[in-house]
Amino acid sequence: MATTATTGLELRSRISRDGELDLSLVDVPVPTPAAGEVLVRVEASPINPSDLGLLLGPADVATIRGGGTATHPKVTAKVPAQRLGGLGARLDQSMAVGNEGAGVVIAAGSGAEPLVGRTVAMLGGAMYAQHRLIKAADCLVLPEGTTAAAGASCFVNPLTSLGMTETMRMEGHTALVHTAAASNLGQMLVKICKKDGIGLVNIVRSAEQAKILKDLGATYVLDSTSPDFAAELTEAIAATGATIAFDAIGGGKLAGQILVAMEAALNRKAGAYSRYGSTTHKQVYIYGALDVRPSEIDRSVGMAWGVGGWLLTYFLMKIGPEANKRLRDRVVAELHTTFASHYTAEISLTEALKPDVIAAYAKRATGEKYLINPNKE
Amino acid sequence: MATTATTGLELRSRISRDGELDLSLVDVPVPTPAAGEVLVRVEASPINPSDLGLLLGPADVATIRGGGTATHPKVTAKVPAQRLGGLGARLDQSMAVGNEGAGVVIAAGSGAEPLVGRTVAMLGGAMYAQHRLIKAADCLVLPEGTTAAAGASCFVNPLTSLGMTETMRMEGHTALVHTAAASNLGQMLVKICKKDGIGLVNIVRSAEQAKILKDLGATYVLDSTSPDFAAELTEAIAATGATIAFDAIGGGKLAGQILVAMEAALNRKAGAYSRYGSTTHKQVYIYGALDVRPSEIDRSVGMAWGVGGWLLTYFLMKIGPEANKRLRDRVVAELHTTFASHYTAEISLTEALKPDVIAAYAKRATGEKYLINPNKE
Repeated sequence: MATTATTGLELRSRISRDGELDLSLVDVPVPTPAAGEVLVRVEASPINPSDLGLLLGPADVATIRGGGTATHPKVTAKVPAQRLGGLGARLDQSMAVGNEGAGVVIAAGSGAEPLVGRTVAMLGGAMYAQHRLIKAADCLVLPEGTTAAAGASCFVNPLTSLGMTETMRMEGHTALVHTAAASNLGQMLVKICKKDGIGLVNIVRSAEQAKILKDLGATYVLDSTSPDFAAELTEAIAATGATIAFDAIGGGKLAGQILVAMEAALNRKAGAYSRYGSTTHKQVYIYGALDVRPSEIDRSVGMAWGVGGWLLTYFLMKIGPEANKRLRDRVVAELHTTFASHYTAEISLTEALKPDVIAAYAKRATGEKYLINPNKE
Repeated sequence: MATTATTGLELRSRISRDGELDLSLVDVPVPTPAAGEVLVRVEASPINPSDLGLLLGPADVATIRGGGTATHPKVTAKVPAQRLGGLGARLDQSMAVGNEGAGVVIAAGSGAEPLVGRTVAMLGGAMYAQHRLIKAADCLVLPEGTTAAAGASCFVNPLTSLGMTETMRMEGHTALVHTAAASNLGQMLVKICKKDGIGLVNIVRSAEQAKILKDLGATYVLDSTSPDFAAELTEAIAATGATIAFDAIGGGKLAGQILVAMEAALNRKAGAYSRYGSTTHKQVYIYGALDVRPSEIDRSVGMAWGVGGWLLTYFLMKIGPEANKRLRDRVVAELHTTFASHYTAEISLTEALKPDVIAAYAKRATGEKYLINPNKE
């Protein structure tokens, strides 16, 4: 037991029934690991889009106000009344935040002693904190010499992008479509598909985003703002044979457009007329919510189609421990290549609660990603 | 070989690239059954919604014009140019029509002789014809004394409604929601669920339709035009535990509303807050297209959801021969109870091509169904 502090800081997010978001740092006791557990000093935890969902919820970023003290800042913002309905049981609860992170094991319970001093990556929430108690078996032990910053994003983006190609294979498809494809996750997917020889149609929303992927060696990069987008999409889908898509946008017409393009590409090679359309199943999985409007599915997609939600957690539960280990092993093996993450800035917990910093990371700008180091300073 | 005529009439539908629908009766040679085949004199074939899709396509019923001769009438109608795109390979093809039917075996090839004289039910298209050649193994032999009219609708509605409860069980659900529920199919589903003790939420669009189902003994019958529909739907779903729906409407907001109500019902009993919503999978299968607008899926449905197409043919292929036999046996056993069909009128092939008759069956009015007897007169 090498820890000296008796309390550590932990970031909390709370949304009240009155529609007020409160972000704060609280002092929590440093726990003592039980048998099989380790205590990790968290040194790096990324702010992923999925973290922003819990951290800020549907708060109006324009209403953010700072407060509190230098060591214990507080931030408030307003949540529009019409957005409170979907928040259910989180209302009035103080929620710990941070899906994934990495740090150094500083104490261990019985049986976990060999991990002391090792840098480990973790998934499981409450990572925006100076200490995280976790089961040793749930830690991904990083190779000696790996920094916490390099290992902070081992799970969400790497496993999500690998989960997409795994799902593709499991469900009998051979190529895929990805939207919002210039994201950190999308760049990883480009690298996976290039390495594994998988056809990938990338959909982005600007020429700048297209250039990012072209520079990575992506073959099919389509700009959805192009006037010829529908035709270009059908061509790229016909060329790759993609019959599954992963969509981070969710709302609007894009998911439906992808299905329509898949159906059109399939019908080009179809033989006899079938009034029920192609018999090949076409699937779009929505895994993000960049657009919170309803999804519009055009009906000219035949009868063999599906649209649904896709969540990493559910996927990992479904594939079982052996496949989980295989995917994690690949992430570690390719941590500095396929799965390398780049961060715009490394910030402390107190910096993470500065209104101007929040405004910056809340933009979710393509290619920008912030890393929290709860033990910075 | 007891057949005497050398040709028989067959109804054909053709849509030209110029946007003209032509319906006609053609003389086709009466075929001779090969080994394992039988020749059936078709005496009853219903006009189901799925038949209208092939028969009339997207033609504008208001533009129907009659022509031809008394024995060989012709009908033309205009197909709006913007609807031609989805018709693909059927354009300029003369298509035989009629998914299912029943009749008497009048000739048989080697090995199928015992069927001569028996009344059989059939699935497979081209039933709006005086004769149908079919494999003996594909015939559903009806019990002695069953009329062709009573056996004409053995497949589409009975197997679709049984397919819904089978799919429900196969995918781990215990109760279901059905839309356009006052249809002939919907009435069968009410009877199946009552008999099998399955929770069923029926959604209809008028008080008259609600009464039809209430009179059959349905417990939950909701009118989607009610101002309190959303709340009533959530209550009925919570009471039954329905997590799967079959939707004949397809377009508009209803499929999404059902998912939202399922999610709300599930979240009532949820314990800790999950920002990804309920982990219980919620599914809507769209099997019809009463509304051809895009389907709008509201995003407040969590992450465990799916919407997709459902087609009887694909379902029957998936479940294999043993399950197919089990379902068919049940249809025959309950042909005069659960699966009894009622027809508005029995019409001949020439009557089926009269403009005023077409206008009547093209309305697809709830509770109205026409039966073609190709050998009437």
